[in-house]
Amino acid sequence: MTYPWPEEGTPLDAISTPMPVIDEDRLAANILKAQSYLDEHGKAFRPHIKTHKIPAIARQQLQAGAIGINCQKVSEAEVFADAGFDDILITFNILGAAKLSRLKALNARIGRLSVVADSAATIAGLAGTFDTEKPLAVLVECDTGGKRCGVQTPEAALVLAEKINAAPGLVFKGILTYPAPGGAEKVESFIGETMALLAAKSIECPVRSSGGSPDFYAAHLVPSATEHRAGTYVYNDRAMLRAGHCAAGDLAMHVLATVVSRPTPDRAVLDCGSKALTSDLLGFSDYGLIEGYEGAKIISLSEEHAVVDLSGCTSGRPEIGDVVKVVPNHTCVVSNLFDRMVFHRNGLVTRVEDVAARGTVW
Amino acid sequence: MTYPWPEEGTPLDAISTPMPVIDEDRLAANILKAQSYLDEHGKAFRPHIKTHKIPAIARQQLQAGAIGINCQKVSEAEVFADAGFDDILITFNILGAAKLSRLKALNARIGRLSVVADSAATIAGLAGTFDTEKPLAVLVECDTGGKRCGVQTPEAALVLAEKINAAPGLVFKGILTYPAPGGAEKVESFIGETMALLAAKSIECPVRSSGGSPDFYAAHLVPSATEHRAGTYVYNDRAMLRAGHCAAGDLAMHVLATVVSRPTPDRAVLDCGSKALTSDLLGFSDYGLIEGYEGAKIISLSEEHAVVDLSGCTSGRPEIGDVVKVVPNHTCVVSNLFDRMVFHRNGLVTRVEDVAARGTVW
Repeated sequence: MTYPWPEEGTPLDAISTPMPVIDEDRLAANILKAQSYLDEHGKAFRPHIKTHKIPAIARQQLQAGAIGINCQKVSEAEVFADAGFDDILITFNILGAAKLSRLKALNARIGRLSVVADSAATIAGLAGTFDTEKPLAVLVECDTGGKRCGVQTPEAALVLAEKINAAPGLVFKGILTYPAPGGAEKVESFIGETMALLAAKSIECPVRSSGGSPDFYAAHLVPSATEHRAGTYVYNDRAMLRAGHCAAGDLAMHVLATVVSRPTPDRAVLDCGSKALTSDLLGFSDYGLIEGYEGAKIISLSEEHAVVDLSGCTSGRPEIGDVVKVVPNHTCVVSNLFDRMVFHRNGLVTRVEDVAARGTVW
Repeated sequence: MTYPWPEEGTPLDAISTPMPVIDEDRLAANILKAQSYLDEHGKAFRPHIKTHKIPAIARQQLQAGAIGINCQKVSEAEVFADAGFDDILITFNILGAAKLSRLKALNARIGRLSVVADSAATIAGLAGTFDTEKPLAVLVECDTGGKRCGVQTPEAALVLAEKINAAPGLVFKGILTYPAPGGAEKVESFIGETMALLAAKSIECPVRSSGGSPDFYAAHLVPSATEHRAGTYVYNDRAMLRAGHCAAGDLAMHVLATVVSRPTPDRAVLDCGSKALTSDLLGFSDYGLIEGYEGAKIISLSEEHAVVDLSGCTSGRPEIGDVVKVVPNHTCVVSNLFDRMVFHRNGLVTRVEDVAARGTVW
């Protein structure tokens, strides 16, 4: 038996829970607002598709003015290439013969593909794969305080840029960072120092890419960056609200959930567990906000249950059978749990989209 | 482009990462060991399919002697009914017209379906749906200290049992609990008191169902329970290892991951992020065990990256391109992220199974 996905015009309260739903108007407004801000500051925008994994939303982002998209996996980029996207940056060190071979096939069939590298090992793999027929654009990833991937110093970035340009099948295209929150000053100085070192060797560095949603509206504090990448801004979530990135009226994703048990006066149980919300805390001590029930606290998740402490409720308590709207701590991981996403406007379904790049494994 | 899933005999090192893989021999041994223990103590075993969501594994569990299966959602039960399973317990309060209608259709087509209820509201919904043509078996869920769903007292269980039996389309079949770890004594007394109350009213209570993997091998400490439910035991994970439920040699699931960056001497980055391991901590302070690298600590996850602190490593450090085996904190949530699961014996692929009940939304 297959699930009867709702048709256009279906009211949200007829949808089986747990289910994330996306508000079309808020989605469109988030896309427009972010693009307008970067336009105003003369920066290119390259949205990260990790948050939605849906080609139709990426098309909305391009129509608003984005220059291309950002993927995290070769297999995600393949899905978007299949859907007609022609300018894709994969912000990941691609290693191993199998992935490199698919990366080469991908490069052959789209206009502009670029990847990152933060080591001689990654560059060696790319250099051995690509040739002068269609060279691959490579950016050097820099660690400006995010403490994930990236070279540690501008000097190390220069060394890798030279290695890239020494490979006939590769072209050094620029530098990239995923900064720590509040890291604008550090990013600006890292980019500046790296550009000076590159200029001294007459190496062009056309792209300086920074990223992140929480600090999105601080992108102008990094004047040397030419582009910004961000994903979460498109839906927003509780973490973005806390960061001041958005207001409550900009939250485009809610997870609809049903109260399935009220075992005690102070406890409710919802049908959205870690297989609907994920257990991402992102620094919170609870697992999401229940709209309309101020003070209700999702204190624990099991796989299909959310346990809610109602003892702090200041405005009524939900009863068995009530459907509530949960703002997830983190939207990107919720998208990754569902094969399709339901969209609505004013509580009526507008469309159901395949989360096309979910579950890709390459 | 679609992913070329590995054929039988493919060596694991030819598989694209990140990817969970299941050791056939450990899987079979886990199934056998658990079944033998419950057989020895005269208890029925009803494995929970939440951990694997794969009909072929549930068949192995039935072949070993399990009496039926346990699902958490109507849509999961539908997948297993489609695959021929005839005795299914859904341990969830089913609410709402849409789900109830599907539950009724499911009851009509399989031999033995049962559900739980912990409130008059849930029973009223069931009572209004089922009829005497094929009554539905209902167990009363009891909270014996797990603090999730369930009635709080034996007296409340009796009240619901009477309500169930008062509905022409329902049959009271027994009581059920998902106990807190170490809760055997509490479970035994709750069952005993409830049975005494039921007996005083001449209400039969043929099924007394307890559950859980961490305390699996303490099931004999609840002599009044007739059956045990458990899911995680089939794969095992780091949390089961910590609980003493299994030994390292019983860990059937590993997540294969590649070292994609070594930005500093003390830091490695793997390609298994929260979209491969999930962020379930289950009380740990880190996100999984890396086999063969004693002291390496996965200190943070982003969606496609795991950051590993190598400063405590006592036996070598992995290099870029190395493939490592990660024991996840929690296997059930990892299964839920992948559309297919790869099995192997001695490092060679034996089969690839659809995770058939993943992504069902009803």
